[in-house]
Amino acid sequence: MNRIGDALHAHCSALFPICRSITGEGLRRTLRYVAERIPLQLREVPTGTRVLDWEIPREWNPRAAWIRTLSGETVVDFAQHNLHLVQYSHAVPERTVPMGELRQHLHSLPERPHLIPYRTAYYADSWGFCLPHRVLEGMADPAYRVFIDAELGPGALTYGECLLPGREEGEVLVSAHACHPSLANDNLSGLACALELARWLAGRPRRFTWRFLFAPGTIGALAWLAANRDGAARRVRHGMVLSNLGDGAPLTWKRSRREDAPIDRMVAHVLRHEAPDNRLLPFSPYGYDERQYCSPGFDLPVGCLQRSVHGTFPEYHTSADDLAFVRPEHLARSFAALCTIAEVVERDETLASTCPLGEPQLGRRGLYAAIGGIGPGGSARGFGQMTLLWVLNLADGRHTLLDMAERAGQPFAAVRAAADAAMAVGLLVPAAAPDHLETNRSAIDTLG
Amino acid sequence: MNRIGDALHAHCSALFPICRSITGEGLRRTLRYVAERIPLQLREVPTGTRVLDWEIPREWNPRAAWIRTLSGETVVDFAQHNLHLVQYSHAVPERTVPMGELRQHLHSLPERPHLIPYRTAYYADSWGFCLPHRVLEGMADPAYRVFIDAELGPGALTYGECLLPGREEGEVLVSAHACHPSLANDNLSGLACALELARWLAGRPRRFTWRFLFAPGTIGALAWLAANRDGAARRVRHGMVLSNLGDGAPLTWKRSRREDAPIDRMVAHVLRHEAPDNRLLPFSPYGYDERQYCSPGFDLPVGCLQRSVHGTFPEYHTSADDLAFVRPEHLARSFAALCTIAEVVERDETLASTCPLGEPQLGRRGLYAAIGGIGPGGSARGFGQMTLLWVLNLADGRHTLLDMAERAGQPFAAVRAAADAAMAVGLLVPAAAPDHLETNRSAIDTLG
Amino acid sequence: MNRIGDALHAHCSALFPICRSITGEGLRRTLRYVAERIPLQLREVPTGTRVLDWEIPREWNPRAAWIRTLSGETVVDFAQHNLHLVQYSHAVPERTVPMGELRQHLHSLPERPHLIPYRTAYYADSWGFCLPHRVLEGMADPAYRVFIDAELGPGALTYGECLLPGREEGEVLVSAHACHPSLANDNLSGLACALELARWLAGRPRRFTWRFLFAPGTIGALAWLAANRDGAARRVRHGMVLSNLGDGAPLTWKRSRREDAPIDRMVAHVLRHEAPDNRLLPFSPYGYDERQYCSPGFDLPVGCLQRSVHGTFPEYHTSADDLAFVRPEHLARSFAALCTIAEVVERDETLASTCPLGEPQLGRRGLYAAIGGIGPGGSARGFGQMTLLWVLNLADGRHTLLDMAERAGQPFAAVRAAADAAMAVGLLVPAAAPDHLETNRSAIDTLG
Repeated sequence: MNRIGDALHAHCSALFPICRSITGEGLRRTLRYVAERIPLQLREVPTGTRVLDWEIPREWNPRAAWIRTLSGETVVDFAQHNLHLVQYSHAVPERTVPMGELRQHLHSLPERPHLIPYRTAYYADSWGFCLPHRVLEGMADPAYRVFIDAELGPGALTYGECLLPGREEGEVLVSAHACHPSLANDNLSGLACALELARWLAGRPRRFTWRFLFAPGTIGALAWLAANRDGAARRVRHGMVLSNLGDGAPLTWKRSRREDAPIDRMVAHVLRHEAPDNRLLPFSPYGYDERQYCSPGFDLPVGCLQRSVHGTFPEYHTSADDLAFVRPEHLARSFAALCTIAEVVERDETLASTCPLGEPQLGRRGLYAAIGGIGPGGSARGFGQMTLLWVLNLADGRHTLLDMAERAGQPFAAVRAAADAAMAVGLLVPAAAPDHLETNRSAIDTLG
Repeated sequence: MNRIGDALHAHCSALFPICRSITGEGLRRTLRYVAERIPLQLREVPTGTRVLDWEIPREWNPRAAWIRTLSGETVVDFAQHNLHLVQYSHAVPERTVPMGELRQHLHSLPERPHLIPYRTAYYADSWGFCLPHRVLEGMADPAYRVFIDAELGPGALTYGECLLPGREEGEVLVSAHACHPSLANDNLSGLACALELARWLAGRPRRFTWRFLFAPGTIGALAWLAANRDGAARRVRHGMVLSNLGDGAPLTWKRSRREDAPIDRMVAHVLRHEAPDNRLLPFSPYGYDERQYCSPGFDLPVGCLQRSVHGTFPEYHTSADDLAFVRPEHLARSFAALCTIAEVVERDETLASTCPLGEPQLGRRGLYAAIGGIGPGGSARGFGQMTLLWVLNLADGRHTLLDMAERAGQPFAAVRAAADAAMAVGLLVPAAAPDHLETNRSAIDTLG
Repeated sequence: MNRIGDALHAHCSALFPICRSITGEGLRRTLRYVAERIPLQLREVPTGTRVLDWEIPREWNPRAAWIRTLSGETVVDFAQHNLHLVQYSHAVPERTVPMGELRQHLHSLPERPHLIPYRTAYYADSWGFCLPHRVLEGMADPAYRVFIDAELGPGALTYGECLLPGREEGEVLVSAHACHPSLANDNLSGLACALELARWLAGRPRRFTWRFLFAPGTIGALAWLAANRDGAARRVRHGMVLSNLGDGAPLTWKRSRREDAPIDRMVAHVLRHEAPDNRLLPFSPYGYDERQYCSPGFDLPVGCLQRSVHGTFPEYHTSADDLAFVRPEHLARSFAALCTIAEVVERDETLASTCPLGEPQLGRRGLYAAIGGIGPGGSARGFGQMTLLWVLNLADGRHTLLDMAERAGQPFAAVRAAADAAMAVGLLVPAAAPDHLETNRSAIDTLG
């Protein structure tokens, strides 16, 4: 686990210094970093383009910004920390600003006076600085010099898509936002995990097409949805938004709007077996880009995998969300869970027994000890006899392997191994699998 | 709350002295009191009329009744308390009755020796007195003088209906029994609340037709059902029996026979938000007139709203259920809950987003603070941002506002306010509402 | 209860000494004992017959088997306890076996050194002895004399069926395995209870056909299923496997694979009212012959009634499962529960009110006290007023009596008695009963 943990943390470290936003060069540099590692197609959506109910904003490129005393001492400097400048601040030519006016443009956290908050003003046509409250309290002068060099003009919003085709119809969407500047957990951790998951899947045969989306939050997801509303979005069978995967909290799955989509059941299963304190949260229309994927007109089966939950941890959206807050071992465990989820997504299926009348004779097929009286359990091939009996008993063409795992109280991997052993001796064959998406949709319709 | 509480208590006080029964002048005087305050149509159903499996009994009009010692001292006098005379006692010409015989006609409560019990013998052709056990224990004479002047003969059963027409199809039934003599909680409290609810609704635009029924228990409800079996009864979308609304117990909703009719969900929602100790009870075929409305051939979606529950409080059906037992503040809280329920009944609806693909841009419509990073909560218009997001997310034409309130964990009023704000800017429009009654019926059929 | 308890124990005592196996004369003698008491048809299935995925094995008839010291002292003798010989041991001509080799053929329980374990090797072509670990520890000689006289050759598997025809379509299957030698709880207790239940039912009018199957475990059930795959097996409406019914543990129902088949609900109901510590277990594909009946191609509604659960009690499959372990009083209580279950199976039905609009007037029909104000409860005829009101309220042609009993919180017998009283005065008539099997199947299909 150390190697992958270190690799994931290295991605975070490499990307941390870049000043990303929902548009601009910082975002492009970030996506290019990803594109150097996995096959990524970059898309540019011009300023002013209508995307669903929204419009692509102007492109923002900050170059310098500071507050100085009238005697020239630096109070706050964007060059020292990306969070110092409120995102989408317009240019302010160097000038003296009375403290009374300046104060309206300063943001701090009185309750955590050492930290710089993260603030944005994408659609506000304003400017501002973020600074530790302790620094703000020390600003006793009647006026300060202020300067912001930032370009805010026509350009484009950039996002990247990595498409790994599969042999069957249907797509799995993995989405990570890529717009946060110098925040390690939210969301370089999710971006790094998505990148490595894509790399891992790229090297394996795939049943489903996996689509990895690296895009600015909200407006990037909306741009992708607008471009794919009748295509990819409609083909999504399962989806995950990844965020906050590097801290030490237990894993959390925020369910899709449907609450019981197959992906909800799959992730719940994996998390239950991964650790007893992992958590499931109901859907709510707040948080990350699951908000957009789960808007009522799309209602995609997309939830959000996190450790600490959006907005609820003290480091959230502050300078404390740094490279020390995310740790290789947490990233590695998140990644391992993602791979297990991917295994379930890829390898869950509905099987049918070729020998459904009475139990098959296992001894003859080398699947059972010849001496009677030996109970269940024991495991030479990654599964116990009891798991094998469950698989054979439920292989009626109506239960998925995940159903079996849930009923047997076994991890998916054990059930899959037992099923593979039974298939190897001809006891199981693939059943006509129900279309998950359609099944789920009609269940939802009934509940509505 | 004091003003409505006092008004409700004043109704109880005005009606308390009247000797009501399931027929007779006391019942008519009571209904006339109601008719002076809301538009009430009085119905007379003649003695002998077949109503479903029953028959309207003779009309009973008691005038005087007493037990005296042979020396003329009063032991029990109907003039002192209406409960002293067993209801539907036939006339007994003044005569001397040996104590051994008289005892068969006396009812008391040994375990609560100060109270007069309430007894009826509608179909028994008998007579009797109710008295404190302490008085009964003092009756040491070998014989007493007994006299009952009561008329029991052809007449009619009277009930009153107040109909407040609405603009849509479908009726809401509010039913209060009106037959109990000098019992304040059971059921003058219910009658008073029904009266004031009708008054409140009469002054407002109404979606549904509201039908208020003031009728003697059991036989009155049966008479109404018999007269309306193919009409009004079949049109009832929601219904409530009101009783015991003046005491200090938490509110209790006894569910309809269907257990999950829309009215059950609506009242459960209101009670949950009104106070944490309010209670839900399953349906049972005992209690008040919900027994009749929920008989299997009607199966109307009618439950019963109470504070203390039928038959379970020590004052129940005794002289302790008096004007001190019901209090203005309890009546006022019951009434407030009823108004909230009426609001849900009237204003629940299914809405559809006009902007279902992705989230709508709220800032542009003045529904969102322009500076990013501000969380949910806060409320200038009676709802928080989070409530608005829930409403927009669930506005898929399949969720009612009540569904949204339940899922958002918010009171209906907040969800309604958010929906109104979204409608005002064109983000929501009414969806073709499902027919609640039919939806519910088919759900029940499936369960059956 | 003593009489039936003693009778049940007497059956166990009579059959205990016989050395049963899945084939052979011991099995035949056991079935003949049953056939002397109830009408039992014996079936012989020849060695080599294909039964589903299995094949009828050779017939095994052991005659003698012992281990002696070289000086002729008996160490272990099959004549002393049937469990000493591993079932299906092939013949071993008298010879001297070095202890090193012999040890491979000896089975004991180190953790319970006084007990003889029970072992089988039906399909292993081997031989072995079972003995107390304490005896094994005393075997210090370098070699022993060993002798097994057992015939293992072409023959037949025997099972017995007792068919008690009913007046309606549909069968109830009661299955007890009959192959265990000198084990009292597992399974002479089940066999004895099945025998007496058949006797009890034989003397009564029957709605369903009851089919009692006494067969060797696994292979016997498979043989029966193979012979009846398109007939009897398909007609099974309800089924129970009986085992371990003589010990002092609470009753346990292991649900059918369907989990909510009517028999699951029926037995759950009876057990809940029989004692508060009775237990329900989910289905699992291990245990007794419910494994075969619940294989996916049959999926019969068959669960297993036990006291102590298969494989979980210390006496299980050891010489401690003897005639002292099973006791008349436990057998009697098991039998009483079986009779109650049979009553529910036979007498559950769907009734419809002839008077569904409003409550029927009970007083006129002698079903209600004439004086008002009397609450529910009280019971002259085996049911209270409240039970009667529930029955009348739910008699809508969609609720079974069991549904009513569950909702009313009353035992089935009280609901049945109330229904009988209501039928007697014409208030209830049989409704067109839904086909339990089909209803259940389609419910399962929907869940699948």
